[in-house]
Amino acid sequence: MQRQTFELLILGSSSAAPTSYRNPSAQLLNIAERFFLIDCGEATQIQLRKYKAKFQKIDHIFISHLHGDHFFGLPGLLSSMHLLGRKQEINIYAAEPLKEIIDKINSVSETRMNYEVKWHFTKDDKLNLLFEDEKTQVFSFPMKHRIFCTGFLFKEKPLMRKIDKFQLEKNNISTAEIQKLRNGEDVLNEDGVLIKNKAVTIDPEPPRSFAYCSDTIYDEDMIQYIKNVNLLYHESTFLNDKVKRAKETFHSTAEQAAMIAAKADVNHLLLGHYSARYTDTELFVNEASPFFKNLTLANEGKKIKI
Amino acid sequence: MQRQTFELLILGSSSAAPTSYRNPSAQLLNIAERFFLIDCGEATQIQLRKYKAKFQKIDHIFISHLHGDHFFGLPGLLSSMHLLGRKQEINIYAAEPLKEIIDKINSVSETRMNYEVKWHFTKDDKLNLLFEDEKTQVFSFPMKHRIFCTGFLFKEKPLMRKIDKFQLEKNNISTAEIQKLRNGEDVLNEDGVLIKNKAVTIDPEPPRSFAYCSDTIYDEDMIQYIKNVNLLYHESTFLNDKVKRAKETFHSTAEQAAMIAAKADVNHLLLGHYSARYTDTELFVNEASPFFKNLTLANEGKKIKI
Repeated sequence: MQRQTFELLILGSSSAAPTSYRNPSAQLLNIAERFFLIDCGEATQIQLRKYKAKFQKIDHIFISHLHGDHFFGLPGLLSSMHLLGRKQEINIYAAEPLKEIIDKINSVSETRMNYEVKWHFTKDDKLNLLFEDEKTQVFSFPMKHRIFCTGFLFKEKPLMRKIDKFQLEKNNISTAEIQKLRNGEDVLNEDGVLIKNKAVTIDPEPPRSFAYCSDTIYDEDMIQYIKNVNLLYHESTFLNDKVKRAKETFHSTAEQAAMIAAKADVNHLLLGHYSARYTDTELFVNEASPFFKNLTLANEGKKIKI
Repeated sequence: MQRQTFELLILGSSSAAPTSYRNPSAQLLNIAERFFLIDCGEATQIQLRKYKAKFQKIDHIFISHLHGDHFFGLPGLLSSMHLLGRKQEINIYAAEPLKEIIDKINSVSETRMNYEVKWHFTKDDKLNLLFEDEKTQVFSFPMKHRIFCTGFLFKEKPLMRKIDKFQLEKNNISTAEIQKLRNGEDVLNEDGVLIKNKAVTIDPEPPRSFAYCSDTIYDEDMIQYIKNVNLLYHESTFLNDKVKRAKETFHSTAEQAAMIAAKADVNHLLLGHYSARYTDTELFVNEASPFFKNLTLANEGKKIKI
């Protein structure tokens, strides 16, 4: 059986000033056809159209912090959702002043949305559960940046145990017990004998996870939240030539991102949020790979299966 | 001698919801290397880069009204101007609440621009002089739309009279008198005889003008402000199939735009601000041309010499 989708689409890989080739931060995460938009730099709605993502399917938008390159695309996206007939509510997870900005914009333009915006304000807590349904959990956690900023952790919930059909028959277990077995419980068979769950089930594939860390200075405190994730997106605004500037502006270098990935023992590292001064992004691979091998560069349109 | 530049570049031709092919409203007017940005829909900075316009040369930004498709690109443009080292002040001509939005955004992002923004608030006046230098005047004038909205009129100042060198020598006039002649004054020649200005000068080419009318319902009141302009941009959000909807939403059809152009006796009509429902813009030509012949469709990247 094919596993449910867990796929990331990169919509923007640039830091603050977009370039001719790169858009500001935005990523679209698809977990089992739930679409989570993470950050929403200017022209995100244009990028969504370009890559054929159905933006009316996005029900949850996560904004890491209120620097413009992470949210200037939100007013336009919300407006287009309205103009194109959205009725379904949308959930926005962000710092509280973003609501004030959106309210102000809607007020001066005398716009009344046809759908409800449900605001969920991020806090400077430790791991903080923002969203949960039967398949997924999303948490925020603190980043160290110039202004209040959170990372986001997306986790599949543990999958049901798999039934070993051969053992099921061999142990004379009624099919009525299958749900209990999937949940990990022991069951009585048709002869009234207790059958241990492990005897007739197989471990499911482990749940997958994705952590989004942008923007942030090099900060080992975050490792506790992102430990062992399948995919870590960690900003790498600079290369080593600007390590001092990275520290001053509360950003990271490619090498620092790789060191965090190694220490957090993640499976796969995704770099992005490149400063406009760098045109050759291969340099980010060169500097990061001595510290962490399994890495990918965020580029507009790239899809990453997790 | 070549005349000074008077050229318009279309950056966006879409109405409220951008499409895969069209961006929201923005136009860049170059009068003698003064660059005037008119409206600034989302991704205008990306369009400026795409069409190789040097956006640090823009010193004046005119915003017609505070519907998002006319200003959602402004925060990002101002931010990029800052990040890319601008020191030169910028002038913004717009309704007052736009300043409150920009101030709020800068406040939550803790951004302090390296350059000054000089605000000039538009008013619901008749023809209202917003800007003037030795070559150009810019006026606002009222539009009828759902919210407060102004059109803009860009006028070259009358050029100096041209000297007829043959007549200058023939009439024995000192070259010291040339400036007076250019200004249209009569002068005394070297024999003390009064020489009429018209005898030794030639009419200069008439000053050119461009009027920007978006967004607006069909409104003959505007004709007084745009009479005889060389180029009129008039919104045409809809075709005749939606003439009722045009009225309800305070927009115009292609035919209505053409009728205004004809009644105002302008030289050249530019249509744009197309609703996303129309993919074939040639239909706008079909409906407008019976009423006004000399017309052009706004399309991204199009340049129009005035």
